[in-house]
Amino acid sequence: MGSAGSPPPTLDATTQEDLKRVAAYKAVEMVKSDMTLGLGTGSTAAHALDRLGALLRNGALRGVAGVPTSLKTEAHAARVGIPMLALADAAEIHLSIDGADEVDPDLNLVKGRGGSLLREKMIEGAGGRFVVIVDESKLVPRLGCTGAVPVEVVPFGSAYTLGLIRKVFDQLPGFSARLRTVKSKAGDDAEEIFVTDNGNYIVEMFFDDGIHGDLRAISDSLLRITGVVEHGMFLGMATSVIIAKKDGSVSVLTKK
Amino acid sequence: MGSAGSPPPTLDATTQEDLKRVAAYKAVEMVKSDMTLGLGTGSTAAHALDRLGALLRNGALRGVAGVPTSLKTEAHAARVGIPMLALADAAEIHLSIDGADEVDPDLNLVKGRGGSLLREKMIEGAGGRFVVIVDESKLVPRLGCTGAVPVEVVPFGSAYTLGLIRKVFDQLPGFSARLRTVKSKAGDDAEEIFVTDNGNYIVEMFFDDGIHGDLRAISDSLLRITGVVEHGMFLGMATSVIIAKKDGSVSVLTKK
Repeated sequence: MGSAGSPPPTLDATTQEDLKRVAAYKAVEMVKSDMTLGLGTGSTAAHALDRLGALLRNGALRGVAGVPTSLKTEAHAARVGIPMLALADAAEIHLSIDGADEVDPDLNLVKGRGGSLLREKMIEGAGGRFVVIVDESKLVPRLGCTGAVPVEVVPFGSAYTLGLIRKVFDQLPGFSARLRTVKSKAGDDAEEIFVTDNGNYIVEMFFDDGIHGDLRAISDSLLRITGVVEHGMFLGMATSVIIAKKDGSVSVLTKK
Repeated sequence: MGSAGSPPPTLDATTQEDLKRVAAYKAVEMVKSDMTLGLGTGSTAAHALDRLGALLRNGALRGVAGVPTSLKTEAHAARVGIPMLALADAAEIHLSIDGADEVDPDLNLVKGRGGSLLREKMIEGAGGRFVVIVDESKLVPRLGCTGAVPVEVVPFGSAYTLGLIRKVFDQLPGFSARLRTVKSKAGDDAEEIFVTDNGNYIVEMFFDDGIHGDLRAISDSLLRITGVVEHGMFLGMATSVIIAKKDGSVSVLTKK
């Protein structure tokens, strides 16, 4: 704790939180001084932020700047002392580090269940390496197997847009979609529509047996819908995936 | 004026405003009682709103409801007494009426120089007929010949997104792009970035000799850019185009 950031991971890591930390620390080993980094959002990426902050404070790294993928990450990075840049001010992003909700055998990802898929996609797709950090529970045979695939949509006409998204998959048994809601801040168990950092809504798509079919064609079909801003399938973007396993070992998958 | 809306168009119409009115009135002849209409935005569509309001007030039309494509059109429709529906509450849109900035020989359009392309595209693409009303100055051999082709982009990373849009056309001589600005409300000749009804920015693309190439492929290339929400090329959407000519005649082009 304290100036060391988080406690160092041990080899007999067993909790999911430990596994996330193991993967995150491994990714941060790839960071060199003077790099500009894309900084991911979510519980795994948070461990990488803590580690980066610690290495900057103890002088092991210098001249590093981060481009945050969400307001939450921006606040976290500020707290641990990582200097930040706006995307437009970064001459180049050398390396991005982020978690993922799902990783398929071709290193395609589902991301954005946390709600910041658009900024993540923009920054992590900006060039340079994109290192994904996950525990082994995130490996899937097909995208969409373990939960929601998010789609960011414009609030205007969102009920109509939801209907058009349903039509893309209407031949697929076991498909459903709904607007993401969160507990109302007013309390009393009410739900309200979740709003992204960009002021948009999220449609959550669910698949009983994952997404069968040509992912790039499905991506284009979604992007052609007028109210769709972006979706959470990250196709061909990850350059490597660091996987922390329950037995304490770490393996790295690299793009063919 | 007054309860008759605007003065009736005469056959020796000569000013551009007269021509717009001639085309708009002709389009409103296609409206039947109990239709739900997509209501366009801009100076030509405004004449259609005035005419619709007059026909509702004098009882020639009944039971008509409109789905407005902008906040401006919503205010105008309210003023002239057209009942309105939200897009999600409209069981069906039977007919949309709107102007266009450019019409090519295949009835592809450039729209949205007024800044409301996303809502227009959503509503006018929702099914039913889409009747475009223009004066003959809007007919072009190729899209992009006479001015800006707008692209709606998310504010976050917009300078970066602008760079990616430029890359789509970097083989094309005479291409340029910039963020749309407007005179600052503070006065003093300052410019500020234009913000759409959806809280987004507009990138204006300019082509010395119009857009050469496969429009649908170019559309997909733009939509695949993470920060791009929508663009102002309306491909294969118009079902007919009503053209008011300087000699006072009106011609109608219909989709093959």
